[in-house]
Amino acid sequence: MRTVDIIENKVKGLENTREEIEFLVNGLLSGEVEDYQMSAWMMAIRFKGMTDRETADLTAAMTGSGDTVDLGDIPGFKVDKHSTGGVGDTTTLIVAPLVAACGGVVAKMSGRGLAHSGGTLDKLESVPGVNIEQSIDTFKAIVKRIGVCVIGQSSDLDPADKRMYALRDVTGTVQSIPLIASSIMSKKIASGADGIVLDVKTGNGAFMETLDDARILAKTMVAIGKHSGKRTVALITDMNRPLGMAIGNGLELKEAIEALSGIIPLDDPLMQVSLALAENMLIISGIAQNELTARDMLVQALKSGDGLNKLRQMIESLGGYTDYIDDPELLIKTETTVCVPALKSGYIGAIDSKSLGLGAMLLGAGREVASDVIDPSVGILMHKRYGDRVNKGEPIAELFINDRSNESRVISLIEQAVVILDKKPENIPLIYDIINEDNVI
Amino acid sequence: MRTVDIIENKVKGLENTREEIEFLVNGLLSGEVEDYQMSAWMMAIRFKGMTDRETADLTAAMTGSGDTVDLGDIPGFKVDKHSTGGVGDTTTLIVAPLVAACGGVVAKMSGRGLAHSGGTLDKLESVPGVNIEQSIDTFKAIVKRIGVCVIGQSSDLDPADKRMYALRDVTGTVQSIPLIASSIMSKKIASGADGIVLDVKTGNGAFMETLDDARILAKTMVAIGKHSGKRTVALITDMNRPLGMAIGNGLELKEAIEALSGIIPLDDPLMQVSLALAENMLIISGIAQNELTARDMLVQALKSGDGLNKLRQMIESLGGYTDYIDDPELLIKTETTVCVPALKSGYIGAIDSKSLGLGAMLLGAGREVASDVIDPSVGILMHKRYGDRVNKGEPIAELFINDRSNESRVISLIEQAVVILDKKPENIPLIYDIINEDNVI
Repeated sequence: MRTVDIIENKVKGLENTREEIEFLVNGLLSGEVEDYQMSAWMMAIRFKGMTDRETADLTAAMTGSGDTVDLGDIPGFKVDKHSTGGVGDTTTLIVAPLVAACGGVVAKMSGRGLAHSGGTLDKLESVPGVNIEQSIDTFKAIVKRIGVCVIGQSSDLDPADKRMYALRDVTGTVQSIPLIASSIMSKKIASGADGIVLDVKTGNGAFMETLDDARILAKTMVAIGKHSGKRTVALITDMNRPLGMAIGNGLELKEAIEALSGIIPLDDPLMQVSLALAENMLIISGIAQNELTARDMLVQALKSGDGLNKLRQMIESLGGYTDYIDDPELLIKTETTVCVPALKSGYIGAIDSKSLGLGAMLLGAGREVASDVIDPSVGILMHKRYGDRVNKGEPIAELFINDRSNESRVISLIEQAVVILDKKPENIPLIYDIINEDNVI
Repeated sequence: MRTVDIIENKVKGLENTREEIEFLVNGLLSGEVEDYQMSAWMMAIRFKGMTDRETADLTAAMTGSGDTVDLGDIPGFKVDKHSTGGVGDTTTLIVAPLVAACGGVVAKMSGRGLAHSGGTLDKLESVPGVNIEQSIDTFKAIVKRIGVCVIGQSSDLDPADKRMYALRDVTGTVQSIPLIASSIMSKKIASGADGIVLDVKTGNGAFMETLDDARILAKTMVAIGKHSGKRTVALITDMNRPLGMAIGNGLELKEAIEALSGIIPLDDPLMQVSLALAENMLIISGIAQNELTARDMLVQALKSGDGLNKLRQMIESLGGYTDYIDDPELLIKTETTVCVPALKSGYIGAIDSKSLGLGAMLLGAGREVASDVIDPSVGILMHKRYGDRVNKGEPIAELFINDRSNESRVISLIEQAVVILDKKPENIPLIYDIINEDNVI
């Protein structure tokens, strides 16, 4: 088998066989396939795509390239949740404890934020003492004891993905749906859960800007899950606005605590999406029959405080100081706060959520490059959401700042990102579609 | 300027700027651009193509990546000739001396054969003593003295092409017309001639199998020549049969000597293509007004023996023994010869010339990989050509062999490659088109 022939087959529009795909993935790690050959093949995939069979085989080869976590000795159906990345999207920190409070078993390996997009690990680390680098044994012991744990991904999982992603990042092959789908799913499958609920974001703050692309990515990932014997559901949700009001690590954890405390109304966008994700996690876990019964259980866990208690237990298990959960104001202590007033009266008609994510990054809440150090307490708290009425001079957002050097730049970013219209804009759907194994083609 | 953005622009179908293209080519050599980035960009070019402006800029950047030969101190218009590679195509060894005999100045750097395709340097080296590795000063001195010289390409010319071609060869990006065109033309331009006549082969033994592709390649190269201020003409000629009767290095040089001796009729395919190339070389050199006057001069040089004399002078200048020119039988002394008889009576209806080239390679006349050592005296001499009548048992070809290990394999290759039909087949054109700066769009 010659690498150049495998590439040539893809260029010509032929399907690559499972053997060919395994040869490339394993060869990249063994040195038999060169970086420049892998990058040429991935570029050919960007143009020619992959069939569901090829994508499933690629995913399996990537999963098989390293260790896989065996969660078999933990009783129950282990469920994972993954978001393709958004702004003000703190759903994991709401959903994971809530599902555990309803009897679900949530074992999740998470990632860090980059550019405008936040990451659950960074949010967890806004609590002093939290250590997200736990051994697999500790991770499993926590899940066994309290039913939920979120840690960083072990570096021994899916080494092929690390190599391939590093190449894609510098060769213009990031934006390829089969490569995105296999990158996400190979890590999820290696992490050992029995089922996965995916939150595929679409809109101006999402990786998939169009609904069509989001739908294809969702279907591709659900098809991979089906091929791999993992129960998989994908929700397609809106990211044409920040999901919650908070953008920044401590701010978002504080918002998650408020959500779990039952302070935030159930019709709030963050709550709606969190509950939909949690419902599907309970359904695929076999704990709830349908969305209605799942919703009843979840609302009960919010009212009783059981969800918040699970979050506190998890933070404690990871070494964190639970005072920060009991008094979340501790999470957002900054030197100063600055309000951004509306420049005119009207309605919030459009929000460029990517710009808001970049604004929070400029304040120190995120990373421009992976090596940047973040400040857990800074960020942006929105005072208005899409469709809200606003009067001139009224604050639309509040900055939590320690380093004022980018303050004026961030204020003008927000002024440009939040468009004020004379008329109330039309509603944008929050959840566009739910793709499961039955409706994936 | 970030490499990934340059690649992304090409993927999106935008034109790369001259600065972007120079950045990539120079960066590849300086190490600022990685091999895997160059191969991803070239794969994107395979799918998205290049405009004439981009191809000209790529060619200029490649030419500028190394030394260029200055032929300015040689009087007259220096003309070069290049073929995209064929089987039984010994035109250079006929055309170069003949044009010199008519007063042209032919300064040509040539290449070696690979796979089914022959190379002029190998044919020259079938004369003992010939050294094709000459300094540029010696090369220029020979051209000045006798009006013609063919040597190997200096390793200091066009280092970008060497790096890029090595990558293309193993990443599935060989078959891209802008990359082929810029590879050929950057070397030709670096070699310093004032004008170039290109022979773009099309058919089953050619790199461009279809006439459409050959036409696009020809137009692309002529457009590059125009951008670069080099007078450039491209002939599109047929390679659905070996051009001459000889396939093998000594055999082809012997055939060139016979051609220059006036033994081969002018309506023979090898003579027709050689004369058409030579005519265009004389015309762009300003020596002949048109094809008719050029043809008269060339026929005169054949009759007078001046062309053959130029070949003898060139071989002598390169250190070769001219006895081999005077007695060309010395070139093809093998241990044995074997005839391949026709399996039935009829007409030669199709010839897979690529198979014949590979057959000669298997006898030792060519290289499977660049490091193979070739045997100058072996090869295949066709006894019949396309359209010829043949009787069962009559020889269609003759093998010149030293090592008999592949004999039976080559015989069956020839039997399959030469199709015998009941009816005389239709004529195939020999010269499909001539593209010059006036008819290139």
